[in-house]
Amino acid sequence: MYPEPLQDLIDEFGRLPGIGPKNAARLAFHLLRAGRDDAEHLSTAIAEMKRRTTYCPVCCSVSADGATCAICLDDRRDTTLICVVQDPRDLTVVEKSGSFSGRYHVLHGAMNPLEGIGEADLRIRELLIRVDGGGVGEVILCLNPTVEGDVTGMHLSRLLVPRGVKVTKIASGVPVGGDLEYADELTLGRAIEGRRSLDA
Amino acid sequence: MYPEPLQDLIDEFGRLPGIGPKNAARLAFHLLRAGRDDAEHLSTAIAEMKRRTTYCPVCCSVSADGATCAICLDDRRDTTLICVVQDPRDLTVVEKSGSFSGRYHVLHGAMNPLEGIGEADLRIRELLIRVDGGGVGEVILCLNPTVEGDVTGMHLSRLLVPRGVKVTKIASGVPVGGDLEYADELTLGRAIEGRRSLDA
Repeated sequence: MYPEPLQDLIDEFGRLPGIGPKNAARLAFHLLRAGRDDAEHLSTAIAEMKRRTTYCPVCCSVSADGATCAICLDDRRDTTLICVVQDPRDLTVVEKSGSFSGRYHVLHGAMNPLEGIGEADLRIRELLIRVDGGGVGEVILCLNPTVEGDVTGMHLSRLLVPRGVKVTKIASGVPVGGDLEYADELTLGRAIEGRRSLDA
Repeated sequence: MYPEPLQDLIDEFGRLPGIGPKNAARLAFHLLRAGRDDAEHLSTAIAEMKRRTTYCPVCCSVSADGATCAICLDDRRDTTLICVVQDPRDLTVVEKSGSFSGRYHVLHGAMNPLEGIGEADLRIRELLIRVDGGGVGEVILCLNPTVEGDVTGMHLSRLLVPRGVKVTKIASGVPVGGDLEYADELTLGRAIEGRRSLDA
């Protein structure tokens, strides 16, 4: 319908997750009207991101130009604690919470037998090498509270406990500020299961 | 928070309309995980769109490489009818409706005194030149049913009627398939105002 170079861009935008055809056209027309610089910056940013973004050789989170990431280089952080997350974005969420000052390990996904995602597809070997290297006292599993997250957590626990490290898992329960009325049964069940004594 | 090349891309995506920070990160991470080709295609498509997309010298719609657009080149279309739209996307909507077989003229916006958008900012001069060139019998105003669209329509009508062309405006009323209960008063008012006799 649109001239080829414009339609090509609409098609490419439409391939991105969560961008429907109308939205893709809206983005393309925005760039058409925008200054030449704006479009060039986006075009260059995509190419540069792809060329320069790498994974940290220690924690497997994102880093630039093959370097070790800023968190792994930060000596003030507790090296005896490793928080395992599925995704670099989860790492950011934990960092923003300000309640963790150890190091991280990014798995890049969770085990999912139905989709054929197994141990070898995740950065599990790298985690075991870190633990085997010594100095790690506790591994905190901060995985999604889903079937895949739980399966991955159980698998990691079976691999890590025999290595002599403490393995913990973040609490599941009702969200702070949430309304009990709207809590689903599974979450409420977990919250009751994980109840704490107020005597302590 | 993220390494520079990744954060740069997140920032660029975040500048696009309707893309919030979380969505921008999701898009950037999608491209990070996607094949090198996918990212390159998008990067190239943006640059090529910007380099090659031009405006049709006749109707001011989008075209490629400075060429006259396919609709203006199509001899089977009625050259005596011009449908005036605000945006090339509106042209696509009219085309999809299949109820118009004349030519188009794209204004690229509507008059908006509050935002300082006046006659000179739109492709009005180009429309007058086409009409003055002769052979145009009717100009159909297919503008947004908003204050800006109405103001623009009235202005065009004042310029076109003295030139001896018939100027019409698309009907405003309740959407087909809509429920009267949910129609707003303005739309219903216009629908009553524009009522048609069933005798005819």
